[in-house]
Amino acid sequence: MNDPNVEELLQAAEEVADAVGDITLRYFRGGLAVESKDDESPVTVADRETERAMRTAIAERFPDHGILGEEYGAKGLEQPFVWILDPIDGTKSFIAGSPLFGTLIGVLHRGRPLAGVIRMPQLRESFAGAVGPGSRLNGAPIRCCPGIPLDQAFLCYNDLPHLIAREPEKAQRLLALGRYQRPTSDCYPYAQLAAGWVDGVVDIGLEPYDYLPLVGVIEGAGGIITDWQGETLSLQSDGRVVAAANPDMHAALLEILAA
Amino acid sequence: MNDPNVEELLQAAEEVADAVGDITLRYFRGGLAVESKDDESPVTVADRETERAMRTAIAERFPDHGILGEEYGAKGLEQPFVWILDPIDGTKSFIAGSPLFGTLIGVLHRGRPLAGVIRMPQLRESFAGAVGPGSRLNGAPIRCCPGIPLDQAFLCYNDLPHLIAREPEKAQRLLALGRYQRPTSDCYPYAQLAAGWVDGVVDIGLEPYDYLPLVGVIEGAGGIITDWQGETLSLQSDGRVVAAANPDMHAALLEILAA
Repeated sequence: MNDPNVEELLQAAEEVADAVGDITLRYFRGGLAVESKDDESPVTVADRETERAMRTAIAERFPDHGILGEEYGAKGLEQPFVWILDPIDGTKSFIAGSPLFGTLIGVLHRGRPLAGVIRMPQLRESFAGAVGPGSRLNGAPIRCCPGIPLDQAFLCYNDLPHLIAREPEKAQRLLALGRYQRPTSDCYPYAQLAAGWVDGVVDIGLEPYDYLPLVGVIEGAGGIITDWQGETLSLQSDGRVVAAANPDMHAALLEILAA
Repeated sequence: MNDPNVEELLQAAEEVADAVGDITLRYFRGGLAVESKDDESPVTVADRETERAMRTAIAERFPDHGILGEEYGAKGLEQPFVWILDPIDGTKSFIAGSPLFGTLIGVLHRGRPLAGVIRMPQLRESFAGAVGPGSRLNGAPIRCCPGIPLDQAFLCYNDLPHLIAREPEKAQRLLALGRYQRPTSDCYPYAQLAAGWVDGVVDIGLEPYDYLPLVGVIEGAGGIITDWQGETLSLQSDGRVVAAANPDMHAALLEILAA
């Protein structure tokens, strides 16, 4: 089988994310009573059922690709193509009835993030992208805001209590930047960045299945996403992430974060 | 004209909020180019146009009622019934393309909040309530979670950077409470509380049009909402608000906040 091209991979990722959206929604806001001998929470059951469906759909299309998922671990990481799956990113939002949870899919090629999808099941919004095809929201092209100066920027800080506890001085400096600062959570700020609605996101404490799917969406929209040292994100990154609409803003954020 | 009863007021408030939802959405995510000699932002134009439409709809139904709105000020505050209007609560969310902005309507009777609506135009969710009729989401009854113990609670902290800056010790104690703690913004956590999805909300720096419309929705769902001293919210409150699913949780939060 020939290697799939990036547009084929991106379309496949969008279709897989789209196909499993209804599974998560069946368990959202107590929609289904969960019966389990292990007394598992609805979000746990939804997480597992969604990931199983994604793994099946990927294996049918690309039987020789590797998969790394939050719930069912790694298989075939030595393959050139590896799919990264987070069935429900934002489990606290899910538990709390907030629609800001997402299903994340990333595709790596030889360890480098190639394509990504941020699918918001309850919002019925699919953000997908890769360098080459570009990024799109429900099929329509989206772009980061390239020209915005830092003093006009809308900046999002994920997991702010954690950020303040671990890096109090950096947090104080970050909160003084830009025009708007907002404590945020999970994947949605990255989708907003790719759509040009916000201009920077800083994050801490992420796992590979949280951050690798974001890369294609951000880079396809012309944005920049790295770790706090400015390095490309990989399976080995430390879970500290910074994303920005343009190189100047990325440099300004790195100057604080890399210190 | 006889005084309207609380169910009539609640229905009228739901209808008014419902009728203006499409105005805000026309300006959301750059949907319309805004032409204005004052170079106003889309959110400012949407705010004003929405409030004008609400004021007209209320004056047609209840010509002798007072109105206090964020954009166009107060009229007839000496009347027994006064409507409180926030056309777009969550302007930062609106600017950032996030669907978590709401249109708020409250009705006061002799200064006491009687009925309220939290309408989420982009989510197409209408949370409405009052003591007597109870609270409802798109017409279906909702309730706070009365039995939840504090150590299992999901707690929402609005405007956390402000809270930490103004009350660092209280913020630290709050962030150690409950099972889940989340930095949140604006009206939606109160809607989540009324629906039984989260269990407590703490807020700081609110204006009367931000907090008075919340009261009916929370109290109609069996919850408690006061200022940080435990006093009933009124036009004269200081903008520090605490809401909880049951009296025990309210008392636990007050113990920290009133100190």
